[in-house]
Amino acid sequence: MSTAGKVIKCKAAVAWEPNKPLVIEEIEVAPPEANEVRIKIVATGLCHSDLYHLYEGMHKDGFPTILGHEAAGIVESIGPGVTEFQPGDKVIPIFLSQCKECCFCKSPKTNQCIVAWKRVIMESLVGAESRITCKGKKIFQFVGTSTFSEYTVIDQIAVAKIDPAAPLDKVCLIGCGICTGYGAAVNTAKVDSGSTCAVFGLGAVGLAAVMGCKAAGAKRIIAVDINPEKADKAKVLGATNYVNPKDHNKPIHEVLAEMTNGGVDFSVECVGRVDVMRSALESCLPAWGVCVIVGWTQVSEVAIQPTDLIAGRTLKGSLFGGFKSKDGVPQMVKAYMDKKLQVDEFITHNMTLDQINDAIELMKLGKCIRTVMNVSPQ
Amino acid sequence: MSTAGKVIKCKAAVAWEPNKPLVIEEIEVAPPEANEVRIKIVATGLCHSDLYHLYEGMHKDGFPTILGHEAAGIVESIGPGVTEFQPGDKVIPIFLSQCKECCFCKSPKTNQCIVAWKRVIMESLVGAESRITCKGKKIFQFVGTSTFSEYTVIDQIAVAKIDPAAPLDKVCLIGCGICTGYGAAVNTAKVDSGSTCAVFGLGAVGLAAVMGCKAAGAKRIIAVDINPEKADKAKVLGATNYVNPKDHNKPIHEVLAEMTNGGVDFSVECVGRVDVMRSALESCLPAWGVCVIVGWTQVSEVAIQPTDLIAGRTLKGSLFGGFKSKDGVPQMVKAYMDKKLQVDEFITHNMTLDQINDAIELMKLGKCIRTVMNVSPQ
Repeated sequence: MSTAGKVIKCKAAVAWEPNKPLVIEEIEVAPPEANEVRIKIVATGLCHSDLYHLYEGMHKDGFPTILGHEAAGIVESIGPGVTEFQPGDKVIPIFLSQCKECCFCKSPKTNQCIVAWKRVIMESLVGAESRITCKGKKIFQFVGTSTFSEYTVIDQIAVAKIDPAAPLDKVCLIGCGICTGYGAAVNTAKVDSGSTCAVFGLGAVGLAAVMGCKAAGAKRIIAVDINPEKADKAKVLGATNYVNPKDHNKPIHEVLAEMTNGGVDFSVECVGRVDVMRSALESCLPAWGVCVIVGWTQVSEVAIQPTDLIAGRTLKGSLFGGFKSKDGVPQMVKAYMDKKLQVDEFITHNMTLDQINDAIELMKLGKCIRTVMNVSPQ
Repeated sequence: MSTAGKVIKCKAAVAWEPNKPLVIEEIEVAPPEANEVRIKIVATGLCHSDLYHLYEGMHKDGFPTILGHEAAGIVESIGPGVTEFQPGDKVIPIFLSQCKECCFCKSPKTNQCIVAWKRVIMESLVGAESRITCKGKKIFQFVGTSTFSEYTVIDQIAVAKIDPAAPLDKVCLIGCGICTGYGAAVNTAKVDSGSTCAVFGLGAVGLAAVMGCKAAGAKRIIAVDINPEKADKAKVLGATNYVNPKDHNKPIHEVLAEMTNGGVDFSVECVGRVDVMRSALESCLPAWGVCVIVGWTQVSEVAIQPTDLIAGRTLKGSLFGGFKSKDGVPQMVKAYMDKKLQVDEFITHNMTLDQINDAIELMKLGKCIRTVMNVSPQ
């Protein structure tokens, strides 16, 4: 392609500093270096983790940055050593790499990748290598992806090739929220047939967890959120009950225990608040209840009673739904194409990249599930 | 037998109030009522949980009581409706019942018994039914057992019949410490062959956990305790390394991470301190490390970082080593008789019931693993 090997000047939403609106700027995206892929972003979702970094994250020195990590696009050019991708391939970037060479990647017991933790997640927040500049300044690439941009450059271990027929303005959500929630239920909790589940938090991740519980054959799925506007969507995706903690005078774990004869078999926390994490654990049945933490927070600790564990509960965490990312994303796209996975239902708004601050406001107000931003034509 | 149906007057060590020495008293033990068994206690161990109740437990109103729950004895008489036991049977009382009728007992997923939590464990601490009186006062039966007594009465759902050839002054330890630690490794953590393990706390429970790790095929077993006198015994039971946290200036989880290329596959906490619980969790390898809490505390909460879970660690608890008690105890006794399980190695002292306060002092000073008190002739 005519742009290969050249710096691309294009539009992106730059976060110059924490707690401020993003600014649409012209940026320069360098050509991909060894083992990297330059991608034209077609569509990107806005996820709570983007907001977390913008407003709450501890990495104040991780700015200026370009946020965005739930996207789909088309390979524009490839760097030296890349054989898996060709220009024109449809792809989904992933914040969790799968290098296929580290001891974690080689084990079936985990979807973690040492490269992801060491390089992509931790260092990129505070200044890993970046191929993006703006006004002469290096712009950090948030979690190695930076999809709030018309173009980005990503290490090939963090890019999944998908079905060329897939609609990118839909399947972009498989790049984070859908896999994260669905997999937390199916892969991490290992929800089993006939079980009773509770999902705390009905954003996209929680709704995807509801969908995962249903897919795993749960008999009863109790959706919990303080925002009653989320109840209907939860039921569309498989919830059998909705509970608003604000409607009760007693702790939510007591409410759930009464509804379920002692507690749920599986609970999934999709909020990222430590008090909700504790409630999710306490909502599990003693003896065999499994609580999976999905919500992300680095600013506080969760205090739990050891006897809640000794009574038989298990507490786990889940990152990207336990999916090995490059393997799992194409499979989830296929499931969508085969009509075995709902995705369209999560998209409540479509906007353009120019409107990103409006999308952020919508999310802060809890008025959307997912807003998909159309960045470039397919 | 001549005593059947009559009140038995005999000796017991009574805890009249918290934080005071036990007092050897003459007590009255009523005949067993429906579904109960009266047992002549032959030998009893002293366990940290007895001391916990005496010194730290929150149930100040659970006095006067007779402590003791790790024992072996001989059935003296049976109450109406008991068909499983006959006078003369050798038995081990168990603080964790197995009623075989509740939904927990009927599930293979847990060893918890609803009766145990509701009646034996919780209520007996604060005044469940008791068949024991002393000086006209009802004496509570600690965790439903009260084995610091020549005779006791126990519900048949909390008594296991064992091989009549078993030496009661040895196998008494299978009634708590050995099963609790061994099973935490084998049943709850599910330690696998070739793995690396860490055991925190080298009392009888921790040493039994070391033994369990070895039986499960662990390649490396790191024993951790601030008391170096425990190191040799740990090695006898299978530990490959001993680490004293006091020998290091950095947190113990960092020491273990350096020794193991990132962390252990399995950690077992056998201390009952929340700071050790957190260390045990943090000592696990991200990606798939499993931490099992065995130590009991009700007075404080453990604070953990959610990201430690999201990185792939699992936190579980274990009660009585995950053994369904009436099923598991006879199997463990058989393993001992078949020389597949070490028990004698745990017994560092033998005393009589009269010497119980000396045994308590020894344990408080960390100068014993287990003291077995010979209560009645076999």
